[in-house]
Amino acid sequence: MVSAAPFIAVDWGTTNRRAYRIENGEVVATERDDRGILAVPAGGFPALVAELRARFDGLPVVMAGMVGSNRGWHDAGYIACPATIEALAAGVVTPEEGVSIVPGVCVDTKSRADVMRGEEVQLLGAVAAGLAPADALLCQPGTHNKWAVMKHGAIADFTTAMTGEMFALLKAHALIGSEMAGEVDAGDDFRQGVEACADADLLAALFGVRAASVLGHRAPGAAAAYVSGLLIGSDCRARITQPGQQVHLLADGLLADLYSAAITIAGGQAVVVDSKASFVAGITRIRNLLP
Amino acid sequence: MVSAAPFIAVDWGTTNRRAYRIENGEVVATERDDRGILAVPAGGFPALVAELRARFDGLPVVMAGMVGSNRGWHDAGYIACPATIEALAAGVVTPEEGVSIVPGVCVDTKSRADVMRGEEVQLLGAVAAGLAPADALLCQPGTHNKWAVMKHGAIADFTTAMTGEMFALLKAHALIGSEMAGEVDAGDDFRQGVEACADADLLAALFGVRAASVLGHRAPGAAAAYVSGLLIGSDCRARITQPGQQVHLLADGLLADLYSAAITIAGGQAVVVDSKASFVAGITRIRNLLP
Repeated sequence: MVSAAPFIAVDWGTTNRRAYRIENGEVVATERDDRGILAVPAGGFPALVAELRARFDGLPVVMAGMVGSNRGWHDAGYIACPATIEALAAGVVTPEEGVSIVPGVCVDTKSRADVMRGEEVQLLGAVAAGLAPADALLCQPGTHNKWAVMKHGAIADFTTAMTGEMFALLKAHALIGSEMAGEVDAGDDFRQGVEACADADLLAALFGVRAASVLGHRAPGAAAAYVSGLLIGSDCRARITQPGQQVHLLADGLLADLYSAAITIAGGQAVVVDSKASFVAGITRIRNLLP
Repeated sequence: MVSAAPFIAVDWGTTNRRAYRIENGEVVATERDDRGILAVPAGGFPALVAELRARFDGLPVVMAGMVGSNRGWHDAGYIACPATIEALAAGVVTPEEGVSIVPGVCVDTKSRADVMRGEEVQLLGAVAAGLAPADALLCQPGTHNKWAVMKHGAIADFTTAMTGEMFALLKAHALIGSEMAGEVDAGDDFRQGVEACADADLLAALFGVRAASVLGHRAPGAAAAYVSGLLIGSDCRARITQPGQQVHLLADGLLADLYSAAITIAGGQAVVVDSKASFVAGITRIRNLLP
């Protein structure tokens, strides 16, 4: 399943861009910069990609992420769930010779709408690489946290929660923002937050942060980890519907720690998966499926 | 129960100030300005109150709200639940002759913390005036929405939800803020939001607003009423725990319409109560209880 032909894989998001030179399914060189799509002027994509390719011996490039959105280079659309890696490869658009852009994935039913762009490569790659089972619940923590239900190796359904964005909003702009100056870790304050959201009453729990400070229940400014626990806990509890539910977590570092702790408290079982290896496996598989 | 002696009642909040000349339990003159406590310079309260009293024949003044907070003139503290109107009157502080400041009310147990300051006069006044039963669930919609459980005419317990603040935060600062340009009313979009939050999965429902716009399920920018429905619906569903639950709503205009609709969809029954009459009844009762 490993291609010998080298290529460049690009994960091009809203604020960052990562490029990998991949040979025989292995990353042999990496670049990362802050040229997310919002930093690219109108009409600027062809020149930027030409520069990138020039640095990598003119290799063909396969790109995923917001570069394929209506604010990117070329709108690659969305593949509706259930979405397989073959369907993604078949949906690739080619704005110019040697450049492929992978479509996103959507839920588009009468009752629900959801979209992802970029995460699908990691999700399908995790299964393709054997890092997660073909039937599994996968979680990709972040600004807009994705929870994907994989069935027979396809993305059968998924849900996005604005967990990370909500934390940033509250910290920067809410009345309780001044209570959120401290560091976040997976310690006691975080765990108390996860416990406290068990009644799904998030709007009240958040005001409780202010009241706890006013009444001296918590030191002023010390609530960042607790609020993180409230939000991540609410997110996990909404997704973990049966005791012992296994969640494959595409994360590392602090986010892996926080979600692992919250999943456990919510009655699930977390398995951390290498998200970079998943991306590389997924994009390599797509490359191999291209004509 | 009506005092013949005239006095000035002041509802002094964070951003606004309202003053009423009350005679025989009736408002005979009203003033409203934007001199909330944040607009008062350090040490500025005595002069402002002296000016106010000079305009009202030097009558005694009874004040409630943030003027009694640690950022106001004099910290009047909190009365712990269950809080009666007699306990509030007994807790009044007197920074100078003829000036009374009513304390707030708190929930201060090992497991829960909550605070109110200003709302307690309206809540206890609604019962005192016979506008709400002595045993009732009262709701005061606003930036920090208060839900009070009244028992035997006292505030037995209460919960604050940051419903109004969350709407403002999302509109001003979230990715979905650009979807929230339209007007809010209690029509179909609002009702759909109330329905959609039935699974208590607020963080996912909010991201769904973005996805619905991207996939063309809703016109771009048209989601303000839907988001309002999600938030107010979540708030009401967390509070209405039995079918037919009666909620006495201290609100008028749009907020009364929105909360009445959401309470009904959530299985409750809304009764709108005159919030101004409740405040006047409450502050008059407190005045009559002062030595």
